[in-house]
Amino acid sequence: MKKIVISTGGGDAPGLNAVIYAVTKSAYQRGWEIYGSKSGYRGLLDPDELIRLTPEKVEDIMPLGGTILGSTNKGNPFAMPVENLAGEIQTLDLSDRIMRNFRRLGFFCHIAVGGDGSLEIAHRFAQEKGMPVIGVPKTIDNDLEATQRTFGFDTAVSTATEALDKLHSTAKSHDRVMVVEVMGRDSGWIALNAGISGGADVILIPEIPFDIELVCQKINDNELRDKHYAIVVVAEGAKARGMKKAVCKKNCELGRDGELLGGIGEWVAEHIRKLTGKDTRSLTLGHLQRGGSPTTFDRLLALRFGGAAVRMAELELFDHMVALKTPDMAAVPLAEAVKGRKKVEVNSDKLLTAREIGICFGDNN
Amino acid sequence: MKKIVISTGGGDAPGLNAVIYAVTKSAYQRGWEIYGSKSGYRGLLDPDELIRLTPEKVEDIMPLGGTILGSTNKGNPFAMPVENLAGEIQTLDLSDRIMRNFRRLGFFCHIAVGGDGSLEIAHRFAQEKGMPVIGVPKTIDNDLEATQRTFGFDTAVSTATEALDKLHSTAKSHDRVMVVEVMGRDSGWIALNAGISGGADVILIPEIPFDIELVCQKINDNELRDKHYAIVVVAEGAKARGMKKAVCKKNCELGRDGELLGGIGEWVAEHIRKLTGKDTRSLTLGHLQRGGSPTTFDRLLALRFGGAAVRMAELELFDHMVALKTPDMAAVPLAEAVKGRKKVEVNSDKLLTAREIGICFGDNN
Amino acid sequence: MKKIVISTGGGDAPGLNAVIYAVTKSAYQRGWEIYGSKSGYRGLLDPDELIRLTPEKVEDIMPLGGTILGSTNKGNPFAMPVENLAGEIQTLDLSDRIMRNFRRLGFFCHIAVGGDGSLEIAHRFAQEKGMPVIGVPKTIDNDLEATQRTFGFDTAVSTATEALDKLHSTAKSHDRVMVVEVMGRDSGWIALNAGISGGADVILIPEIPFDIELVCQKINDNELRDKHYAIVVVAEGAKARGMKKAVCKKNCELGRDGELLGGIGEWVAEHIRKLTGKDTRSLTLGHLQRGGSPTTFDRLLALRFGGAAVRMAELELFDHMVALKTPDMAAVPLAEAVKGRKKVEVNSDKLLTAREIGICFGDNN
Amino acid sequence: MKKIVISTGGGDAPGLNAVIYAVTKSAYQRGWEIYGSKSGYRGLLDPDELIRLTPEKVEDIMPLGGTILGSTNKGNPFAMPVENLAGEIQTLDLSDRIMRNFRRLGFFCHIAVGGDGSLEIAHRFAQEKGMPVIGVPKTIDNDLEATQRTFGFDTAVSTATEALDKLHSTAKSHDRVMVVEVMGRDSGWIALNAGISGGADVILIPEIPFDIELVCQKINDNELRDKHYAIVVVAEGAKARGMKKAVCKKNCELGRDGELLGGIGEWVAEHIRKLTGKDTRSLTLGHLQRGGSPTTFDRLLALRFGGAAVRMAELELFDHMVALKTPDMAAVPLAEAVKGRKKVEVNSDKLLTAREIGICFGDNN
Repeated sequence: MKKIVISTGGGDAPGLNAVIYAVTKSAYQRGWEIYGSKSGYRGLLDPDELIRLTPEKVEDIMPLGGTILGSTNKGNPFAMPVENLAGEIQTLDLSDRIMRNFRRLGFFCHIAVGGDGSLEIAHRFAQEKGMPVIGVPKTIDNDLEATQRTFGFDTAVSTATEALDKLHSTAKSHDRVMVVEVMGRDSGWIALNAGISGGADVILIPEIPFDIELVCQKINDNELRDKHYAIVVVAEGAKARGMKKAVCKKNCELGRDGELLGGIGEWVAEHIRKLTGKDTRSLTLGHLQRGGSPTTFDRLLALRFGGAAVRMAELELFDHMVALKTPDMAAVPLAEAVKGRKKVEVNSDKLLTAREIGICFGDNN
Repeated sequence: MKKIVISTGGGDAPGLNAVIYAVTKSAYQRGWEIYGSKSGYRGLLDPDELIRLTPEKVEDIMPLGGTILGSTNKGNPFAMPVENLAGEIQTLDLSDRIMRNFRRLGFFCHIAVGGDGSLEIAHRFAQEKGMPVIGVPKTIDNDLEATQRTFGFDTAVSTATEALDKLHSTAKSHDRVMVVEVMGRDSGWIALNAGISGGADVILIPEIPFDIELVCQKINDNELRDKHYAIVVVAEGAKARGMKKAVCKKNCELGRDGELLGGIGEWVAEHIRKLTGKDTRSLTLGHLQRGGSPTTFDRLLALRFGGAAVRMAELELFDHMVALKTPDMAAVPLAEAVKGRKKVEVNSDKLLTAREIGICFGDNN
Repeated sequence: MKKIVISTGGGDAPGLNAVIYAVTKSAYQRGWEIYGSKSGYRGLLDPDELIRLTPEKVEDIMPLGGTILGSTNKGNPFAMPVENLAGEIQTLDLSDRIMRNFRRLGFFCHIAVGGDGSLEIAHRFAQEKGMPVIGVPKTIDNDLEATQRTFGFDTAVSTATEALDKLHSTAKSHDRVMVVEVMGRDSGWIALNAGISGGADVILIPEIPFDIELVCQKINDNELRDKHYAIVVVAEGAKARGMKKAVCKKNCELGRDGELLGGIGEWVAEHIRKLTGKDTRSLTLGHLQRGGSPTTFDRLLALRFGGAAVRMAELELFDHMVALKTPDMAAVPLAEAVKGRKKVEVNSDKLLTAREIGICFGDNN
Repeated sequence: MKKIVISTGGGDAPGLNAVIYAVTKSAYQRGWEIYGSKSGYRGLLDPDELIRLTPEKVEDIMPLGGTILGSTNKGNPFAMPVENLAGEIQTLDLSDRIMRNFRRLGFFCHIAVGGDGSLEIAHRFAQEKGMPVIGVPKTIDNDLEATQRTFGFDTAVSTATEALDKLHSTAKSHDRVMVVEVMGRDSGWIALNAGISGGADVILIPEIPFDIELVCQKINDNELRDKHYAIVVVAEGAKARGMKKAVCKKNCELGRDGELLGGIGEWVAEHIRKLTGKDTRSLTLGHLQRGGSPTTFDRLLALRFGGAAVRMAELELFDHMVALKTPDMAAVPLAEAVKGRKKVEVNSDKLLTAREIGICFGDNN
């Protein structure tokens, strides 16, 4: 009987359990045995940390957030920091031990669900150690070039939009500016989609460096049209133009290149407060965006990813990753998959629409 | 100053107000005047039924279900049943009167949001009367060939999935079969997507005629694997194989060709009850699926449809319809648009995944 | 070490798992062992159907609908229909066998969570067999005189209100009458609370027999005030005045006293359609109202019920039931508890408010 | 025809629009005219800021968050800071001007919906200027002694619980401690109810000064029982025992008496991180708790408050406030109403249950 092992790694994304559900059910349907490795590769280091997965075991997990396998990132198995009995930290290469266990336990395939870090490690296992690995991409930011969509993103956008809906009425009743910081260190997808569908006046994203004066001008323009409140959505990686160390006080750290590290939402709020005189509040949604039951969109996508991964295993399409190429699923070599990042296109139809319905991006367009 | 008019027609779909919002805001941004015609063409028959739309007026409507313009279908303006003072019903052609008003009021474009019926009428106005018309497709069933997606569908699927989630735990606690009838007269998209993401055991859709015995066998198989409950999702247009008039009693009407008219969910429940002996309940979600605030997915899509419609108006791309061709918006001739219906493909990756995770479609595959 | 057993019986009510959670955690905190009996008394008939409950086991169950113990009602243990090998149904008294197991296994208390049927059986065990039993009331209808509130009710009302919110916008867009049938065979609590908070125009409850003509007059009055739609909420036990067999066709069964059995929502819709000529649709919420994650209100109440039950066990306050007497929990003798039904008071402040904001109850007040 | 005026003041609370809805509808039913004063007393200073309220106008507002009247607090009319043309701020007493307008416009009653600040001003108008005023209490914190419940509280608790549900699965998957700061400057009601129903391990409230070491011990105890994550709910007014200025660095300001001003959630997270070595994140829910559609519980309560206010106006029960004394509504003199604050009772049944299901409050009990 064929045996496969599945692991989940990296930050949380709603839909991980749906992948596990689909992999388990469709592997089982083929008569395979399926095991889950807890906390990334831990189950391959220590077989006590392997769980036998059956249809009964996964019956109710599909709509649940998180991952039943756990996902604590204890680092890269090729260079793992380990504490010895004397309390010293040593960096060990555990990859051979993992491969030995993988072979000894008779697995014919490892389905690795993870972000770009985890997928790179999976690729290295395939290349250097000959592990038959299949990747399933996981990034809540939806910024992977190789696949049109990743699961978790729709849920994160929905959570952020719901928050904006809630803040809308209270901002309006109190003539307030509400600044909401959402996830997106390198790309503005969550900010853009949530901002548009949540009725934001201003959206600030990493792809478009913003001028805080133009942001404030938009808010003042609202006043002229008898709209006395505003909603400002800020991606955590948004960058202010001409930001100097001197300007950044409370809550702002600056990196080597003078960029703001953390607290951009608070920073934007403080500047709006000063420059417009309006009552301005800020809120950081943080981990709320990674939690909760996946939306139906994400459940379907995650299930399809899981189903396709098992079909790829059957075809022995190893060292590849599952990807969505509407309307079908495709196999992309892992080598390519981990390279490209997808940015918000400044000239896309979506951005154009956003501008035309009056949303300001803090630039001169 | 350019003036345009927008109308909404046909059954409800969450996202209609988001289209109106985007059209109003982006027309206004171009310096145009924008008017809404109440209840389809009523505003073009009687200018008292026209509403001036401004950014202030649409400010809060985006997340709302329904349509602020109303959508009561009082029939086809080319052959409208009208009651005269004597109480007699006459069929009148009101199209010339509508065109006269359209010209007299100085509109340069009509944006018609509607289902295939409304789009066909719009196309006829363009062809026969020379009305500069732009169509925006609206069908909650997502079954239009010309566009990859229509707004309202994601919301309907979410509502149905949420219902399935609720029924899941209570079915399990009570060892019950729950049969849920969802929308889909001609296509099974809602049933398929909601059924998969809501963890259904059985999904019955118009594209795959089902055998009630195979459905019951699946439910009995569950028992063997110690699963004593089941969720069955039935599209309203699902068809039983070999269904005879004699079998259909309570709640079942049969059409000319011996097909079941209405009540298929109840019919399925009754047969499961008899054939398996299990406690079986049925529920019809009905209009719940057409209501409520649109999901972020539908809001975004509807806004993009509205924005694209205004850009098409600017380019005078009349007698065309807005369509989604991922990742862009496209213009499709109305003549083509109203033709093709999109059915669930029996060999698609989605259906394959559904079968592999153990879902039964009532056929022999 | 003290050992207790808990069972859940009767129809589903969101919050059952929260009771099990609180009982398990607070019994464990006292150093007791706690067991769950599956499907009512089945675990006491057959120890294989007992589950050891620990804090780890119940860790995640609190927000879940349903009951992890199952609740299939296989009848009264004092007169249980049992099938023998020859396929004949015999009625057996299993109460002594249950008591023997209860004593043999060393339980000092049975916490019985259930509706009036289950509580009566529990009381009989206490009286006739000397079982040290503590009741926890469970009725989604909130119609128990002995306690101010029962868990599950707030969730059911929320589900129904959410449905009304969804139907509101679509009814308005299409000038429709929407008739929604909700639970409440003997009392109108769910209909009343959901109807008021869901903005209903008409609420029909068992406590106030309605006149269908007055209902239609209210809907026609709406028209005069330029409101062309209406929401009608009907409790399943609502009764039409002067209803005769002749009037009831499709979907309506009449009982011995000429009352309508089932389908009252559909009946009301059909009459409104005929008498007002308006486009009228009906919907039955059914089991949706029993499912889903409990609201915070219900979670808190269920947890407090569970905690109080364990304190009562400690005090050996047997043959009593937990009850809410704001702001405290009280112990009520089971003998009393199962008697009184709480009806909607026709002169209560809530009903008065409902009438004053214009809601029609189908009577002449 | 009798004329009344209604105003809303102070911070937002879901349910304000439901009060306006009930007051409008039930005043209209009596044949009265009803006006809304924008932004507190602004409509009484400047009649241009009065809105005529009719059943049509309020038709759809009941489920909406915020208040259609606006609630910007521009200070106390008895001592209002006003900017003159020279840009200087003067403090003016506008109360006589308000009373003149009130009489000139022929109002016979003012229904003032607001928090303790607004109610005190209303009381002063009644006492010093003879304004016939009726108060409706509004505090999201539920900390008013005079009424058992206030609207908005159930919604705030639900929002916070939903956030905890979302964080639960992600905390568990990643072996994390999540610290969530909720509202409650002086009382711990929101923290207590949300914490219990959201499955928190630790709840820190103003009524029980906490010892951070005991909090960390609870988290370490979790580890022993193989639970590697924890949820900590902190009311914004929670106080650490023995907190010294030296300990408080980043994000912490200390007041005159050495108490922490703002950022208590962040402070708790930082200390847990240091003292337990666990991956710890913090989140502040902030204004999310004041927004959104009211729960059915809050809608019902707000509607009953509004209905009772109009009945009190009819009875000329001025200088009184509406209050809930289960199961009825009562009239409480405003003089009393604004006095007592309701604190979490340390010996209440709810707190006892919380402790018994294993929740830690950071004290030695």
